Amino acid sequence: MKISDFKKKQLRDGFQNVSELRQDLVSGDWMIVATGRAKRPDLFIKREKEKFEQPISECPFEDPQVTGHGEPLLIYYKNDKRRRLKGIKKLVREWSLQVVKNKYPYLGPGDCSKVYKEGPYTLMDGAGFNEVIITRDHKQHLALMSLNKVEEVIKSYQERYLALMNHKCVNYVFIFHNHGLKAGASIPHPHSQIIALPVIPADVRRSIRGAKEYHDRHRRCVHCKMLEWEKEEKRCVFQNEHFIVFTPFVPRVNFELRIYPREHQSNFEKITEIERKYLAEALWQALFRLCRGLKNPSYNFFIHTAPCDGKDYGYYHWHIEILPKTATWGGIELGTGVEVLLVKPEDVAKYLRKIKIK
Amino acid sequence: MKISDFKKKQLRDGFQNVSELRQDLVSGDWMIVATGRAKRPDLFIKREKEKFEQPISECPFEDPQVTGHGEPLLIYYKNDKRRRLKGIKKLVREWSLQVVKNKYPYLGPGDCSKVYKEGPYTLMDGAGFNEVIITRDHKQHLALMSLNKVEEVIKSYQERYLALMNHKCVNYVFIFHNHGLKAGASIPHPHSQIIALPVIPADVRRSIRGAKEYHDRHRRCVHCKMLEWEKEEKRCVFQNEHFIVFTPFVPRVNFELRIYPREHQSNFEKITEIERKYLAEALWQALFRLCRGLKNPSYNFFIHTAPCDGKDYGYYHWHIEILPKTATWGGIELGTGVEVLLVKPEDVAKYLRKIKIK
Repeated sequence: MKISDFKKKQLRDGFQNVSELRQDLVSGDWMIVATGRAKRPDLFIKREKEKFEQPISECPFEDPQVTGHGEPLLIYYKNDKRRRLKGIKKLVREWSLQVVKNKYPYLGPGDCSKVYKEGPYTLMDGAGFNEVIITRDHKQHLALMSLNKVEEVIKSYQERYLALMNHKCVNYVFIFHNHGLKAGASIPHPHSQIIALPVIPADVRRSIRGAKEYHDRHRRCVHCKMLEWEKEEKRCVFQNEHFIVFTPFVPRVNFELRIYPREHQSNFEKITEIERKYLAEALWQALFRLCRGLKNPSYNFFIHTAPCDGKDYGYYHWHIEILPKTATWGGIELGTGVEVLLVKPEDVAKYLRKIKIK
Repeated sequence: MKISDFKKKQLRDGFQNVSELRQDLVSGDWMIVATGRAKRPDLFIKREKEKFEQPISECPFEDPQVTGHGEPLLIYYKNDKRRRLKGIKKLVREWSLQVVKNKYPYLGPGDCSKVYKEGPYTLMDGAGFNEVIITRDHKQHLALMSLNKVEEVIKSYQERYLALMNHKCVNYVFIFHNHGLKAGASIPHPHSQIIALPVIPADVRRSIRGAKEYHDRHRRCVHCKMLEWEKEEKRCVFQNEHFIVFTPFVPRVNFELRIYPREHQSNFEKITEIERKYLAEALWQALFRLCRGLKNPSYNFFIHTAPCDGKDYGYYHWHIEILPKTATWGGIELGTGVEVLLVKPEDVAKYLRKIKIK
């Protein structure tokens, strides 16, 4: 039976359905969309102003070398400027983005070749790398940047990915961004993080496993199958020549957005210079609409891409997941692994499509 | 190589290890224990007093029938008392616990026999039940209750489980408890919730799948294998004749506790009256030590038990997971599915074992 018939049936039944259950195509997981509790998208607008500010004088990212982050692993400069310093015109190079080591890393030096056992348990060194990508401006977060700046951030992700992926201890490079206090950012100055580790993170492993199982059964990419549908359907928020932004049929959280390359690609790090420009536009469109639509909510985004462990992941389709923080997780979310949805992804897409672009 | 050798090697290597990676026995997932960032357990004590209070006059659970929750689905009474009412001594029955329908349910009436398709997607009615278990006292949460009261709560879980499990739309009964604002409780008056639904929640499905895969390979219960080790090892917090409380080797969050029946049992709802008393003691011990140790933190707990869909889950071992809320999840947690551990489960167990019982 078709979903349109489902809606007719609900009307016929004479009760407003309390909720619907939607099955995720990749994982097979069922999610609750609590339509009976549903709110209008604009009711998710952040109410209280979050106090998440730090004076520039106390910010550790204003001058990372002074605050002991060591030499930059990568640095981009602004256009050279001449400035008057103590009365003399001088050429001053100002940085625009830099990548440094995380001072409080999750992973560090270690031996990734050995696995230790005791009783039923397995353990290994947390060998790997943890870097921070810092953009120059203290307050200008991604949604407020020019497309060129956003592209620069993506370029730095790619460059550091390529630099880390071939290390013998690195089997996965995880790139993520936390914006706002509720999304777990500890420093307000805009920054992203890269973690390079010897194992594949749990959630990524599940995503890959789901894609592989679908591919084994249907001989095609599950994400391509979804995209075929999403470009037609009403969950699409934005698309350009190479990328599409949409709200998934089964989101993990309210207001989740996804960005996919429209053509099948397994590896983020292989995007071309042209594609990078289009990706910058797609990412900016997603974040700008979200920030305008929900009044600067906290959010996280991260890249799910194929591991760099030398195996073949040709069936996988890399993408970005953007997860705004609009709810506090309770027992039902923690025990079931997903957020109860109080707004339909179709309504979210409609709401975000209407946001006026500056 | 043994884990003790791992520790010797770390010393030999002459650097303090930034972190270790631990592999979960059930899921195969790897978790980061960031030992280099590690904190002493007492640094997790809640600092700010959470403002999460509601005057009794505004509490919807003080008199659930007056606030429109309908007739109780289950009610327990306190010992009968004679009270002087308008000068006359009268027998007044006071309730001690009651179960009512959730006024804002996640699931409701619907047709669970039909599944709808459109394109690649699947959807069904959110058919099921959502009940609230309310204890009488406005402020007395589980850690402050007498053992008899805790047992009463467990008895109500069991009774409602048994009442719901045979409904044709019910394939899983999920019981959970949210304590504190950060754990997603919306009403401070202590209460638990039951959700009965036609599908198996994602996280439960993964837990069952992990147990099945281990059982298929090793012909034994993965949880029994763990328990064999945990009763000897230093992660045990408390045990009595029938139950054990411990910090898992690979916790999902900092300060996680688990409660297991020591003998293999697949179904929570089958516990005997005697076992219920021992479970009450184990649950109280876990929550009291946590609340004393971390100064009343927010926490969630839930029961993971075999589904009631008529299939055989003999390989599964039911248990309770208690997840205190001590961190804000960021991109690394959301994108990998687990919390970075800043305290070792062994240190947590040691810390909680030392808590003096009143």
